[in-house]
Amino acid sequence: MKIGILGGTGPAGSGLAVRLAAHGHDVMIGSRSQERAAETVDALHEKWSGRELSLTAGDNAAAGRAELVVVATPWDGASTTARSIADQLDGKVVLCMANALARVGHEFQALIPPRGSVAASVQAAVPDALVVAALHHVPAKELGDLGHPVESDVLVCSDHAEAKRTCMELIAQMADMRPLDAGALTQATPIEAFTAVLLQLNVRYKTRVAPKLTGIKNS
Amino acid sequence: MKIGILGGTGPAGSGLAVRLAAHGHDVMIGSRSQERAAETVDALHEKWSGRELSLTAGDNAAAGRAELVVVATPWDGASTTARSIADQLDGKVVLCMANALARVGHEFQALIPPRGSVAASVQAAVPDALVVAALHHVPAKELGDLGHPVESDVLVCSDHAEAKRTCMELIAQMADMRPLDAGALTQATPIEAFTAVLLQLNVRYKTRVAPKLTGIKNS
Repeated sequence: MKIGILGGTGPAGSGLAVRLAAHGHDVMIGSRSQERAAETVDALHEKWSGRELSLTAGDNAAAGRAELVVVATPWDGASTTARSIADQLDGKVVLCMANALARVGHEFQALIPPRGSVAASVQAAVPDALVVAALHHVPAKELGDLGHPVESDVLVCSDHAEAKRTCMELIAQMADMRPLDAGALTQATPIEAFTAVLLQLNVRYKTRVAPKLTGIKNS
Repeated sequence: MKIGILGGTGPAGSGLAVRLAAHGHDVMIGSRSQERAAETVDALHEKWSGRELSLTAGDNAAAGRAELVVVATPWDGASTTARSIADQLDGKVVLCMANALARVGHEFQALIPPRGSVAASVQAAVPDALVVAALHHVPAKELGDLGHPVESDVLVCSDHAEAKRTCMELIAQMADMRPLDAGALTQATPIEAFTAVLLQLNVRYKTRVAPKLTGIKNS
């Protein structure tokens, strides 16, 4: 699949880009600055020089022309970026992995953005896109480390059943990640906010946690 | 330890009561109605008649005289109940396991109460108590089923380090539950809200999930 990543130069976006490319997808890393996107792509090609990775660079508008578009910008740029290319996102699956946070001293605090979540803000900004929220809890560094699978359950929510299924299938391709249907886009509020707790645990226990849910059998 | 449970007749409160009693604690189930508390205690004694369980019944004021007090009322009664016995709670560890929810159709929606969480509302209502938030994600039915251990990580947060430690030690006594230090009471907002996601998964997958976090080694 052709996948574009808005704000793909950050740790989460570039981690997802390289992981998706490793699974055979054509991934374009988008950025406000095409130059920075190109630098990120060059660095990833160099880091994983032994692998065939279909990674290209573009500005966010170019990345928005892909079949499936990921929003991996900082949370406060997510809606604005999506709205700026709204025409291209209409009718498309838009996977939003951003979450709103503030760091206050040693504490990560969850912020509640307008409409309750970053994903709901993006959905409101591009009402004809099929917004799906997912991948908030996967540690970015692990995502980008192709030498290891990412052992994590991935909570996926959306108001669009078909788009949710598409994202769940995409996530299921990535080794050891298990997508879970967490319901409607309403659930993006607690899912996004919970990221603050996971970061807090990372600081406290000097680690990088990922959530697993007991009690759900693999089908 | 003498432990009192405010609103202890519900599934979460009575589940915790029987589990704590099974680990040798003296537990009083409190309720607005002492009669209802007595009925719950009788039912638990009958269900677990083969075991020595120190379970007694009282009104919430009586339960509030214990060394450690648990708030297991419905979320919208938590602050009022705590405030009504504020004198007894001063200086004590108050473990708040309530979370605010609405059921809209088939969807569980997290509500954000005043001050961001039920626990922070309770802390504001009884400022001299040492409020700790924990045990939101443990499925009530599993908690009350002494035949099986509860395999779950338990996120614990508080602004009072010593009280947090006390609750973590209490939780660690219960087989297969692992307490994790999730930081300050701010974190009760995403921790409480996340309960809605877990309930949503329970409905979707016809199960009862409990969270585990990979990446934290047991010390």
